[in-house]
Amino acid sequence: MTDTDAGCHRNDRDDAARWLIALLARLPGLGPRSARRAALHLLKRRDALMIPLADAISETARTIKTCTVCGTLDSSDPCRICSDETRAHGPICIVEQVGDLWAIERTGSFHGRYHVLGGTLSALEGVGPEALGVPRLLARLKEGGVSEVILALNATLDGQTTAYYLTEVLADSGVKLTRLAHGVPVGGELDYLDDGTLMAAFSARRSVETP
Amino acid sequence: MTDTDAGCHRNDRDDAARWLIALLARLPGLGPRSARRAALHLLKRRDALMIPLADAISETARTIKTCTVCGTLDSSDPCRICSDETRAHGPICIVEQVGDLWAIERTGSFHGRYHVLGGTLSALEGVGPEALGVPRLLARLKEGGVSEVILALNATLDGQTTAYYLTEVLADSGVKLTRLAHGVPVGGELDYLDDGTLMAAFSARRSVETP
Ligand SMILES: [Zn+2]
Ligand SMILES: [Zn+2]
Repeated sequence: MTDTDAGCHRNDRDDAARWLIALLARLPGLGPRSARRAALHLLKRRDALMIPLADAISETARTIKTCTVCGTLDSSDPCRICSDETRAHGPICIVEQVGDLWAIERTGSFHGRYHVLGGTLSALEGVGPEALGVPRLLARLKEGGVSEVILALNATLDGQTTAYYLTEVLADSGVKLTRLAHGVPVGGELDYLDDGTLMAAFSARRSVETP
Repeated sequence: MTDTDAGCHRNDRDDAARWLIALLARLPGLGPRSARRAALHLLKRRDALMIPLADAISETARTIKTCTVCGTLDSSDPCRICSDETRAHGPICIVEQVGDLWAIERTGSFHGRYHVLGGTLSALEGVGPEALGVPRLLARLKEGGVSEVILALNATLDGQTTAYYLTEVLADSGVKLTRLAHGVPVGGELDYLDDGTLMAAFSARRSVETP
């Protein structure tokens, strides 16, 4: 027996609990052992947690859409950020992932709009500018009204390569380009930062020299 | 903002993703941050993982029952262990939790039946012998055919207090009483042991001196 066997020992493909554990073990942060604990935790709280969780997952899967403007996930399209008229139209903050947008929203220090790339450029994985919605971003800039593009990418090699590419692409757009202040640890990912560090990095953002 | 805020920053009770994150954060091993990561992981794998997981949770919640013989959770009652005629009727292994039963089953080193207490005696929390199914256990012994009761409780204070209580209760039953061999680390919980240690502890189990 190895620890990778998520369920109990019986060979039964119809075993509902075993199948549940196998699926839970595919969540980030849950290995086979913690997936078993999570399943038992659910089974002991059938009405209070298990059924509400099943409903919440179905409901979210059914209702969540990708915003056709900014690329984030929300129950409406355009998302509630893009359609919120109290938010500034000037600044657009470019992030890699929806989780980064959530992290910035939690700081409450940014009141503009977003552009969610959904990843970074990767020749290896065949991720080009189109997959990251760069043409969509350029179209937003052409519509006018954008005063600043904030590059809030991860301080990783991939993030910085992508930021450099965007710097080149946006050089002639006439829009002010900024990036998050140093304060983001080198090699660090935004979603792991505490809110205070992220807030400080945001308010001390600085201009990017365009080539 | 504190880190205990599981969702994004908007105050919207109808936010499906926020509600999903709040529920995921109640699973053991997932804090608010990892719950957000898990939710995004699901949202990116809607058909491959998110919908199957919702279905598995519903299905398991709907079909899993508590075995009226041994107290484990299974899709049938009596459970597949209790109704498996190839398993020995002689030995009954007493465990605290269903997770402990699963851990022992994974070792493949026990082929008898179980009795799942569902906890330990606790005066503080008002858990008495009835809540642990001790009368049900005694009734099983009265039916005859039981050759050995193996006390496979956690090596914690609560587990050992409960084991001591069971030793007293079962002293006059005429059934051989054993406990797991030392090898279970003091203060350790069965479900955290590697299978090899658990297997060794199982095969070296020894008689309990009855008072
Ligand atoms: Zn949007
Ligand atoms: Zn049973």
